[in-house]
Amino acid sequence: MSQWAPVELTKSYLLLNHGPVTLVSSADGRRRNVMAASWAIPLDFDPPKVAVVIDSRSFTRELIEASGEFVLSIPTRAMAGQVLAVGSASGRDGDKFARLGIATRPASRVGAPLIEGCVGWLECKVLPEAGPQQRYDLFLAEVVAAWADPRVFNNGRWTFADERDRTIHYIAGGNFFVTGDDFVVKPD
Amino acid sequence: MSQWAPVELTKSYLLLNHGPVTLVSSADGRRRNVMAASWAIPLDFDPPKVAVVIDSRSFTRELIEASGEFVLSIPTRAMAGQVLAVGSASGRDGDKFARLGIATRPASRVGAPLIEGCVGWLECKVLPEAGPQQRYDLFLAEVVAAWADPRVFNNGRWTFADERDRTIHYIAGGNFFVTGDDFVVKPD
Repeated sequence: MSQWAPVELTKSYLLLNHGPVTLVSSADGRRRNVMAASWAIPLDFDPPKVAVVIDSRSFTRELIEASGEFVLSIPTRAMAGQVLAVGSASGRDGDKFARLGIATRPASRVGAPLIEGCVGWLECKVLPEAGPQQRYDLFLAEVVAAWADPRVFNNGRWTFADERDRTIHYIAGGNFFVTGDDFVVKPD
Repeated sequence: MSQWAPVELTKSYLLLNHGPVTLVSSADGRRRNVMAASWAIPLDFDPPKVAVVIDSRSFTRELIEASGEFVLSIPTRAMAGQVLAVGSASGRDGDKFARLGIATRPASRVGAPLIEGCVGWLECKVLPEAGPQQRYDLFLAEVVAAWADPRVFNNGRWTFADERDRTIHYIAGGNFFVTGDDFVVKPD
């Protein structure tokens, strides 16, 4: 089971800043879904916002448009198989959570679930920006709550003690990069 | 000096898909600038588009609004010092290229320069989406040409033979992650 600690909202962009793949979960009160998304970025620090691309044909899109809410969860290397699997099936064909053995827990501020096994979570409410949404499948949202596994992200810093906890970056065709070592550059 | 080969436009999203930090270069015919941006994602495959956040107070913003064009260059670990430096100074205080020893070469379809030493380049023309631009500093653009160093990105695949050529991901405060090893997941 994941460990959970609240992340200060103004530091929540750090969960996404290095460009990891995300899982987008959604729910409309009756049905729920989860998909993978690489095309997600922070959009602002305070209040924190995000932008994420959600294909117009996806079941996730239907649930997000109905609820105005979603959660971005940050998966680990240990979860790469699930990330690929949720990106390869449609939730219209049956609940992916049950089929793929993906556990969840309730979010604090939105109806969409948090994905167990991840190391960071951003609870998001969609901003009313119909233009980019309709023309480019681009959803802008405010982050209303954030959580992280304190073994991995603590006080605004990532520390990957276990290789299996590292975040991952999607390439294509089932290929990923693992997030590599960190290093610091001193200003001149 | 960098090596350069054209990248098929429909594969150009792969330069950005894993979430590396980017350098945004711009020019208005008289002045030019370069800044760092982590908040950049692909927005579509064909025709390829990108979304990038450009702060409203930046000199880059002024040049992009004047020209309707920019280039995203993908820097390497060897360039992390320059990435931090261009993100820490304003081009209003004098040409950053000269000051920081950053070499360029002309782009093929836009006026903004390509940054030498990088391993991927996306030449972009801004789409007329004033709403997200004014309200969220979010620029949507079409990729009109793309290039990569064929030693590092060839036929749609990244291969980092030299550790110094690896792409990088920005965290905060001068801290980066290097892009780690790649791995493949087979679908069930």
